[in-house]
Amino acid sequence: MKNKKLKEFGVYLLENIDPIVERHAGELIKIQPRWFACIRFDECKAIAAYGVSMHLECFTRGDLVPLDNYFNSCAEIKLDRGVGIRDVVEVALIGKQSLIGAATDFFKEQDDFLEFLQELEDYFVQVLTLTTDRYSGMLLSRLNAEHVRNKLLLEASRTVTSALDPDEVLSRLAEVLAGTVGEGCCTIFLVNPETGGLAPCAGFGYGSKECQSALQGLRLCASGNTLSGEDGKSYGFCSSNKASLSFADILPEAVRSGSASLFHITNSDRMVGVALVSSDLPGFTFDDATKELIGGILNTVAVAIESAAAARQTRRQLMES
Amino acid sequence: MKNKKLKEFGVYLLENIDPIVERHAGELIKIQPRWFACIRFDECKAIAAYGVSMHLECFTRGDLVPLDNYFNSCAEIKLDRGVGIRDVVEVALIGKQSLIGAATDFFKEQDDFLEFLQELEDYFVQVLTLTTDRYSGMLLSRLNAEHVRNKLLLEASRTVTSALDPDEVLSRLAEVLAGTVGEGCCTIFLVNPETGGLAPCAGFGYGSKECQSALQGLRLCASGNTLSGEDGKSYGFCSSNKASLSFADILPEAVRSGSASLFHITNSDRMVGVALVSSDLPGFTFDDATKELIGGILNTVAVAIESAAAARQTRRQLMES
Repeated sequence: MKNKKLKEFGVYLLENIDPIVERHAGELIKIQPRWFACIRFDECKAIAAYGVSMHLECFTRGDLVPLDNYFNSCAEIKLDRGVGIRDVVEVALIGKQSLIGAATDFFKEQDDFLEFLQELEDYFVQVLTLTTDRYSGMLLSRLNAEHVRNKLLLEASRTVTSALDPDEVLSRLAEVLAGTVGEGCCTIFLVNPETGGLAPCAGFGYGSKECQSALQGLRLCASGNTLSGEDGKSYGFCSSNKASLSFADILPEAVRSGSASLFHITNSDRMVGVALVSSDLPGFTFDDATKELIGGILNTVAVAIESAAAARQTRRQLMES
Repeated sequence: MKNKKLKEFGVYLLENIDPIVERHAGELIKIQPRWFACIRFDECKAIAAYGVSMHLECFTRGDLVPLDNYFNSCAEIKLDRGVGIRDVVEVALIGKQSLIGAATDFFKEQDDFLEFLQELEDYFVQVLTLTTDRYSGMLLSRLNAEHVRNKLLLEASRTVTSALDPDEVLSRLAEVLAGTVGEGCCTIFLVNPETGGLAPCAGFGYGSKECQSALQGLRLCASGNTLSGEDGKSYGFCSSNKASLSFADILPEAVRSGSASLFHITNSDRMVGVALVSSDLPGFTFDDATKELIGGILNTVAVAIESAAAARQTRRQLMES
């Protein structure tokens, strides 16, 4: 970016920043009382100083790196607090006017001032396009996340009334549950009504044959305390084959670190199963929105388990008669 | 808004608009080839002319009414095409630079030019805050709509595994279905396995006692052709009480106008009922997103109907034994 006059001005103003910060803070309170009139004036001045010095550093460097850091430090927080794109753009433009005000005193020659204005105009095209890009990008990614949640809930509800075999329905639902997290895996465990133990009945997302067969050998029981579930309940587990022994180390650690979680499946307060959902993304943990989504899908899973049990019983009765 | 110099400039430029339009169109193609390089140059010039003359009219009038009309004519369309807030802001700022370029030639005195720049700066603060407000408002309302859809789907799935009585579940689901549209009403009709006819079993949103009792008397049958359902199937209807006779005029007209709609409820390809959903909002019609949402909830309704039937049968068997 062209920054001949911007740099002159930036170098000077960084040394004498107080008056412009004071002015900018006053403007912020006047134009956006909603955000700035309710905080202490020195806090408001600190925000103004951060914004102004960010611009001045961009002026002297001739690039937008300080602006990028500024975004990374506060953009998500602002959005969460309810600050709109409009507010952010307005603050930038108020800042620009404060800068023009200070430049009127600094540039004694009108030609220098006009050259400065041209450079400033170009700079703010970049600032504003970058700003709006960032903020609308964040909004759009939230919109997209909600959209994905919707698709998964619709898919789950569609599955349970589809003409699929009841066991296929559970496999499809394991796939939907795995889809709630990045690089997700899911195993659905069903309660054995005779023993009260939990055995896997459907799974999705486990790449290797070894992993799949190891999971097949896994059993959970409600009496142990090796694994803590989402609802505070804890489970013991044992292995019914050699391969699943490897989970003795992996699974408790994954649950502890938060990359895997056990979710209770209930129907009318009766526990009918447990879903193990995990993500292979490094450092993954479940946020509240994902837990709520999984809870919603598990209601559908509970219904599907009920239907599968009813179908199994009908089959048995037919064979006995 | 202050528009002394803006007006002088606007009045002059509206008479000599071609050079600036040509320049602005060229800039649009250069800076946003994604949107402008793929259309014919005269089409691009028409877009540029619309934008520039909108600004000039604001200059001469001294208010933002032309900008408002501009938004109303194209904002939603742009957003649907995938144009981002960033793109819109950038186009506005490119337009500003084209205006500054033309003003350099127009204002012979530097003091006049500086006064013009100040007025232009103030004007663009308003333009950009209004623009970003509008566009982010549209994005946020879409985000909110998706959020509401999620809540309804979660609520429906929660209802069906709740400890409620099966008939209460259907009433709750009628409420959820009514919530998919503004000022919504919903009646769920169940298939009578003996006659094949459809009788109302749960409803929500009908204000008056008269209306409720009239609906209670309504029967649908799959053989008629008075009402067209969402899936192309049509239904006849008859009244089992005097009050419901009034629907003979109202319902077919509501379905024809699109403010009421009949949705098939199926489970594994078997039709188990019909949901009548309607909105009291003037001029309401169902959009695709709402139809998809209702379809998702109806899968849950189908499961609930199945459970209610099973519960009824169990009750009967218990009474017989």
